[in-house]
Amino acid sequence: MTLLFCSASDSAEDWRREIARHLPGLEMRVWPETGDVADIEVAVVWKPPAGMLATLPNLKLIVSLGAGVEPILLDPTLPDVPLVRMVADGLTADMAGYVVFQLLYWHRLMDRYDALQAEARWEQLDHRPASEVTVGILGMGELGAASARTLRTLEYRLMGWSRSPKSIEGVESFSGPDGLAAMLPQCDVLVCLLPLTDETRGIMNAGLFAALPKGAVVINAARGGHLVESDLLDALESGHLRGASLDVFATEPLPADHPLWRHPRVRITPHVAGVTHPSLCAGQVATAVTALREGRPIPNLVDRSRGY
Amino acid sequence: MTLLFCSASDSAEDWRREIARHLPGLEMRVWPETGDVADIEVAVVWKPPAGMLATLPNLKLIVSLGAGVEPILLDPTLPDVPLVRMVADGLTADMAGYVVFQLLYWHRLMDRYDALQAEARWEQLDHRPASEVTVGILGMGELGAASARTLRTLEYRLMGWSRSPKSIEGVESFSGPDGLAAMLPQCDVLVCLLPLTDETRGIMNAGLFAALPKGAVVINAARGGHLVESDLLDALESGHLRGASLDVFATEPLPADHPLWRHPRVRITPHVAGVTHPSLCAGQVATAVTALREGRPIPNLVDRSRGY
Repeated sequence: MTLLFCSASDSAEDWRREIARHLPGLEMRVWPETGDVADIEVAVVWKPPAGMLATLPNLKLIVSLGAGVEPILLDPTLPDVPLVRMVADGLTADMAGYVVFQLLYWHRLMDRYDALQAEARWEQLDHRPASEVTVGILGMGELGAASARTLRTLEYRLMGWSRSPKSIEGVESFSGPDGLAAMLPQCDVLVCLLPLTDETRGIMNAGLFAALPKGAVVINAARGGHLVESDLLDALESGHLRGASLDVFATEPLPADHPLWRHPRVRITPHVAGVTHPSLCAGQVATAVTALREGRPIPNLVDRSRGY
Repeated sequence: MTLLFCSASDSAEDWRREIARHLPGLEMRVWPETGDVADIEVAVVWKPPAGMLATLPNLKLIVSLGAGVEPILLDPTLPDVPLVRMVADGLTADMAGYVVFQLLYWHRLMDRYDALQAEARWEQLDHRPASEVTVGILGMGELGAASARTLRTLEYRLMGWSRSPKSIEGVESFSGPDGLAAMLPQCDVLVCLLPLTDETRGIMNAGLFAALPKGAVVINAARGGHLVESDLLDALESGHLRGASLDVFATEPLPADHPLWRHPRVRITPHVAGVTHPSLCAGQVATAVTALREGRPIPNLVDRSRGY
């Protein structure tokens, strides 16, 4: 069995080492050095060039290196074989860590303490107890649930919005358009961890921001396509929103002249909230390949009709 | 029954409102307006002036507004009445939030991402998965255990050092001088949450820093007296330590000309890691007062021989 690796942003050498550890004897090739395409039965990919996967006549399995698969689903020639998305532990813990860090930054007034430190000024500011701060999470899948688990230990009030109602301990569940309208006015902080689909594209727009209470904070760790960036800048400028933490953008890399870079109340990270660490994630590739070989059900299959 | 409130850094009016809510009918006076000192049976205090408590002839209970009581125990005239320390929920969650925020700041390279944002530069840096980062916690009482609970949800490797061995799920326990020597070389991040006693004063000194691996980070959320500040500056300057997050200092407020303020790898907050929010903590005062009135055991009593 031969595996083809294709990613511009992951280290092929790190993945080769880790895959060899889990699947000794499996041949791994790195795109564009495909060799005889007829050999390739498994493709492990992140943002593959459109049409590339269709050139592999014997492909039996695609594994996405990311948790979101919409860059893959956009390809109209995508072969109809099982598609697996990454839900490895390290990525989930990374994402929960990103969310709790950005939330604490705003809740605990770290923007103001950073400014005070720069002036060597000792001034104790009042912050509300976490139990009086409401955090709304858009998307209560694996990543939303993990973030909620961490935030619960810190006593935040938690609300979660998802396509269908969910029962997660300590999280008030909302769903559908009415649920969103009911949740938003209560959220001091809104975190986006949704999959990007036709229904969720552009969900964070002027209307959503207006429904949040004045002084709210927005955190986007999902996809740039969820956010209307010009609407966010307007809501910050008007003073309605206090701040935003963004890890993802409509155009990545974010162009150097983009106004988001220099906005004093926007925190930017370059799409690193959740990372697929080869040492942790190769095991999930191995699980999928082994299930395929043995004809057992493959975990974390994408439902293409839902888009995740 | 009359209560005397004495604190330079807490809002007497907020406390008056919350105490009236929990203990209607109780008279609260605010130092130095004591009225007839013979009326006062309960003192609620933070850093009271030395000798003040000894002027209250009918004092039956002292409640500390902080979790650490060493400023109170330093008073040689301290009356021999029950002394209660604050272990209210909000303070514990605050402290765990401070610890996880500072830890994530260093682990997730936020110092470098902040610098990159200032230059509008998109550059993805490698961070290790949390499961490969070891966090050592000095002091595994209420605050250490709560911090560990949050950090576990993020998959950090956890070690805890305390006077006596503790059994806390997911935390490798160390105790005594040999335990400290065994733990330190493994700690990528060291967090101090110890009570300040004769045994722990100055524990974070040149010897301890040398025992940490190169590139380690130190977080002090306990007391300024735990840290030898000049040793820390030396360990940062030599490049042995990567950074430090400090909430407490030998002298507070930290003097404006102190070199810690301007060190590029030191993050300073003005003793706000754990705050006693009146809305959350007044209940604990009420519990102590009610137990005293009814002759029942009073929770969270300080053992003066241990110092906490």
